[in-house]
Amino acid sequence: MSELISGNAVIGQSGGPTAVINESLVGVVQGLRAAGAGLPGNPIRKVLGMHHGVRGLTEGKFHDLTDIPSERLEILARTPSAGLGSTRDKPNHAYCERILEACREHNIRYFFYIGGNDSSDTCRIVNELANEIKYELRCFHIPKTVDNDLVENDHTPGFPSAARFVAKACMADFLDNISLPGIKINVVMGRHAGFLTAASALARREEGYDRLNDGPQLIYLPEIAFKTERFIEDVARIFDETGRCHIVVSEGIQDAEGTPIGATLIENAQTDAHGNVQLSGSGALGDQLANLLKENMTPAGGTPPRVRADTFGYVQRCFPDQSRIDQHEARGVGRYAARLAMSGDMDGSVSIKRMNEPGSGQPYAIRYERVELRAVAAKTRHMPEAFIEGHCDVSQAFLDYCRPLVGALPLYERLD
Amino acid sequence: MSELISGNAVIGQSGGPTAVINESLVGVVQGLRAAGAGLPGNPIRKVLGMHHGVRGLTEGKFHDLTDIPSERLEILARTPSAGLGSTRDKPNHAYCERILEACREHNIRYFFYIGGNDSSDTCRIVNELANEIKYELRCFHIPKTVDNDLVENDHTPGFPSAARFVAKACMADFLDNISLPGIKINVVMGRHAGFLTAASALARREEGYDRLNDGPQLIYLPEIAFKTERFIEDVARIFDETGRCHIVVSEGIQDAEGTPIGATLIENAQTDAHGNVQLSGSGALGDQLANLLKENMTPAGGTPPRVRADTFGYVQRCFPDQSRIDQHEARGVGRYAARLAMSGDMDGSVSIKRMNEPGSGQPYAIRYERVELRAVAAKTRHMPEAFIEGHCDVSQAFLDYCRPLVGALPLYERLD
Repeated sequence: MSELISGNAVIGQSGGPTAVINESLVGVVQGLRAAGAGLPGNPIRKVLGMHHGVRGLTEGKFHDLTDIPSERLEILARTPSAGLGSTRDKPNHAYCERILEACREHNIRYFFYIGGNDSSDTCRIVNELANEIKYELRCFHIPKTVDNDLVENDHTPGFPSAARFVAKACMADFLDNISLPGIKINVVMGRHAGFLTAASALARREEGYDRLNDGPQLIYLPEIAFKTERFIEDVARIFDETGRCHIVVSEGIQDAEGTPIGATLIENAQTDAHGNVQLSGSGALGDQLANLLKENMTPAGGTPPRVRADTFGYVQRCFPDQSRIDQHEARGVGRYAARLAMSGDMDGSVSIKRMNEPGSGQPYAIRYERVELRAVAAKTRHMPEAFIEGHCDVSQAFLDYCRPLVGALPLYERLD
Repeated sequence: MSELISGNAVIGQSGGPTAVINESLVGVVQGLRAAGAGLPGNPIRKVLGMHHGVRGLTEGKFHDLTDIPSERLEILARTPSAGLGSTRDKPNHAYCERILEACREHNIRYFFYIGGNDSSDTCRIVNELANEIKYELRCFHIPKTVDNDLVENDHTPGFPSAARFVAKACMADFLDNISLPGIKINVVMGRHAGFLTAASALARREEGYDRLNDGPQLIYLPEIAFKTERFIEDVARIFDETGRCHIVVSEGIQDAEGTPIGATLIENAQTDAHGNVQLSGSGALGDQLANLLKENMTPAGGTPPRVRADTFGYVQRCFPDQSRIDQHEARGVGRYAARLAMSGDMDGSVSIKRMNEPGSGQPYAIRYERVELRAVAAKTRHMPEAFIEGHCDVSQAFLDYCRPLVGALPLYERLD
């Protein structure tokens, strides 16, 4: 454990916002203030927030959070979306040098970055550059992503709240679908990992689940190659049996060659700094799948079945109906990062480990752990095979894993 | 007041489901049971639910609700979407004759139909046919529609809960938009009436509202002719000033000739029995508006602005986060209809009247009132002029009108 060096702390938020990313921000601020940050004689002078992530840092744009009243912090924690502003910039080596320069200019010695795998990679590069020139900078990554695709984590803050929205929306939408029968497609976020799409399965009844009488009936994940012919057959089989079909599809579904089905469909699709082609913010994938079904399921000389598609869109990542556990843990990872920095650690990423095996009957419990930045940086986690059943469903293991995260879901009555 | 004739009661749900339509169903059942329905000696023998509205009635498909346990009823009331099943059938004269025939066959003497203006028209025709042949049938219409477009009503059950979803979704989405700036379009339900789209304005801060710093900044209603050029100018003005723009558009926006902008864009759009062309269940309108902006706002030789579009879709009408007032009133209109029937009225539609002028400082209060079926049937209410400001905003009068309906909204902290 090394002596704490005197200087400022900076916190940034990066990538797609979530409903609990401000909990993590507030967790770091509280953690640092609890250790005396800003008080006379404390090594940490100021607690600064980057305005729009590393972009704001390099431009010298900060929010001073050192003395923000606790009551404002508590309301900020409950506020969805990145309160500091976020950024999609993906710093390369040269950009990271500018970040480090800005840190030196503003005497920043404590660096906290809340984000997904790209953000952890930014942390790693900045940390390595600082080490090279022997500028003492404590660098911590704090996990966040609705995609739940960080390695080394049981799950990531942001995912449980988004999963809660998806489960509740699918619950209501399935009831809508049996009330006015037809074929309904819902498109859910998740570029490479199917966790959020899989969470739609929590919409089904926990007890007495019946495949034909609970939705969604078909779930398509990016981890399983999407085959158009098979999709039409799947839908037709359920539609023939019940006169309706409730389908959830990940925006990231791809064919056997790994080509995303959705990206090719969006007219004038835009690409971000990470080279990611736009998948969200368009209804194109849902609309084309709906059209595919209308064209292929129309009986000769007959009328096509009623097919509708909704794309849940950005609202799923920020909807203000947070999972309690998610709020608690998002705060927790922030506080834990502050504690690591104040207790002498030089760098690392905070990870969430589950204590008891899901489905074991033991209560849900987690602990935080420091892992190496390079263990997390720029890596993507996918749905494990044990969470997937066949080509269009999730397993009981996934339900056991996911259910405690989202919190209590409404209980409904059905007359059938 | 006439003596009650002995027979069965039937209740049906029609049209698009809502988050509180089962409250109304339960309200009727409770109202009839409170008056002794099903008990020995009571004129009402059985309380039946039509399976999928008048279609199920003509096919003799019922749920027997006479003895359903109260605990199940209470959970059913909180369950979104039509628990009995709904229908889009729009009965003509011949269909209504079949309905009346089915009533005679099943000794139905009390007829309750929960729905919008088309459903009240069904009620009216069935009632007139019954009168013609002197078959005593008490016919009551119970209001329901997220579109809020029934005449004779201050507002209609279903609207406040849908408005609550739209306001909360826009609140979160605006925060998302200022966190990652760009142009964002949200498409909201409402074929002819802009009430639900207008409710997005509740996403703005109640105090200290600032047009550039609160969203949505532009609101397009079906009541105001949509002009493409003006739309592009509106967006460009705000985008130039702030680097972002948050827009809400009704799915029902139409040009000066009354042609819907959206319907023409949906590939293979489907038409329902009411002759309504599909507007929901497709992202086409949002996507085309996004495309229009990308094409027209790209600086010469530059890159287009970041434009995204989400279509809120069916989830807005059934999302399980009901307004308390909506739940209470939806139950209330059902109970009131039962009371009208049991106290001797022969027909009518239940309407909600507001007691105190919105914005008067007096507390929110309503009363129920019986109105003639023909006063409501097949008529459409639009946003009154006093609720609209300019060509792309709503007035303070609308906010005063709408705010008490949706219930408390989250309070957020902003760092700007």
